[in-house]
Amino acid sequence: MKILVTNDDGINAPGIKALSNALASIADVIVIAPEKERSAIGHGITMHKPLRVNEVPWEKPINKGLAINGTPADCVKLGLDALLNEPPCLVISGINWGENLGTDVLYSGTVSGAIEGCINGFSSIAVSLTAKKDLDFTFAAKFTKRLAQLIINHNLPAGTMLNVNIPSIPTNEIKGVVVTRLGRRRYTNTISLRRDPRGRNYYWLAGEVENIDQAKDTDIGAINKGYISITPLQLDLTDHCFIKEIKNYLPFLWPDQENI
Amino acid sequence: MKILVTNDDGINAPGIKALSNALASIADVIVIAPEKERSAIGHGITMHKPLRVNEVPWEKPINKGLAINGTPADCVKLGLDALLNEPPCLVISGINWGENLGTDVLYSGTVSGAIEGCINGFSSIAVSLTAKKDLDFTFAAKFTKRLAQLIINHNLPAGTMLNVNIPSIPTNEIKGVVVTRLGRRRYTNTISLRRDPRGRNYYWLAGEVENIDQAKDTDIGAINKGYISITPLQLDLTDHCFIKEIKNYLPFLWPDQENI
Repeated sequence: MKILVTNDDGINAPGIKALSNALASIADVIVIAPEKERSAIGHGITMHKPLRVNEVPWEKPINKGLAINGTPADCVKLGLDALLNEPPCLVISGINWGENLGTDVLYSGTVSGAIEGCINGFSSIAVSLTAKKDLDFTFAAKFTKRLAQLIINHNLPAGTMLNVNIPSIPTNEIKGVVVTRLGRRRYTNTISLRRDPRGRNYYWLAGEVENIDQAKDTDIGAINKGYISITPLQLDLTDHCFIKEIKNYLPFLWPDQENI
Repeated sequence: MKILVTNDDGINAPGIKALSNALASIADVIVIAPEKERSAIGHGITMHKPLRVNEVPWEKPINKGLAINGTPADCVKLGLDALLNEPPCLVISGINWGENLGTDVLYSGTVSGAIEGCINGFSSIAVSLTAKKDLDFTFAAKFTKRLAQLIINHNLPAGTMLNVNIPSIPTNEIKGVVVTRLGRRRYTNTISLRRDPRGRNYYWLAGEVENIDQAKDTDIGAINKGYISITPLQLDLTDHCFIKEIKNYLPFLWPDQENI
């Protein structure tokens, strides 16, 4: 029974080490991860350059990880189609250094690793630890192992994956686990304008987060209150509610069209 | 009245030229696009290097475009927060050289430009022309202008954007316009293994597309039949249907938890 583990912080990040070593007690763990950090790359894949695979030493019983010069989605594609000799029972991406909540999942490399597993028909989970510093992945890895075992036993429906965020607070302060929907957030003051020594402008993306929807039943709301959030995600972005309304526009776009 | 135009084929691609020049007759067009092709980068943003803006000459009355060393999402962020002196009435990404259908929208740089506009509260449209060669953007640009005018008059609901695909067939063979949902596709045989002159393996991402759901009401089905597809998209990936079911797992994950 194999679990494919990837991340977007890179193969040397502490989160993927803690996660893969914890999972090694329940399955045969294959670590395939970017050779360096690929945060905020979204669901990118690498089509314009060849991908290389390099072994890196790992703790027993895993023994080695595979570092790729690509994105988390590349790692999962390469794992599933070329590097694993049998299909995994689970794809897990993480544990990310920092939260992946609400609208941010659209930018998240961590989530994109799990999306790629889900597209290819495998039960997939993305896991993130919320704080930015002094992170201890011990509890998060232990919790993810428990969740992984549950998903292996029950499977997820085809086309559904899980996005898990774990608050980085002392374990005895975590209040529990809630199933959530994605909240909504936006970034303000996202651009920092600077001038280089040669007098030319350049820009840094920055920004302060503004939570637009952090209700109790959202992932943002759960984390704010000290709970672990589990958000089931699906990959159909169609706005089914708006389909009917926009059909009213069709006569303006293509007069005399027959209904099909 | 301003329209912000971006793409992922790069600022020198014919699709963005045809589109922006067509739109110039209905609005003040601001072209901000990647300096080079950024296909399949998903919804990536650039956080680890500074962004630079360079002017490139453009046809009158637009006069200049702005080339950015970043992704389509970067271009839209930078446009909205730093480069435009007033909010646009519309963000349009395209016209892409090649289709963006079904599950592929998750990988699409073109769609990500419109997603970024949508996240920031602006009516946004992604437009793609389906064929891979001998593309003539004339009709697609004309159609997009008609659609843009309609959306400017009516606006889209907050959080909804449009993904438009136009078949690359002679104009008189296009059957009409249909409102669709996203189809589903998957890639098979995605990895091509090669050996370099020094005997080391490397891998190319490749793959043949397999349409899993190309029903009549999907974007894939519409394009197959010679129609323009308009798919309304929303950005909440939550699998609302599965929330209730997965709540049954909670006692296994966190025994003795109080309900919240």
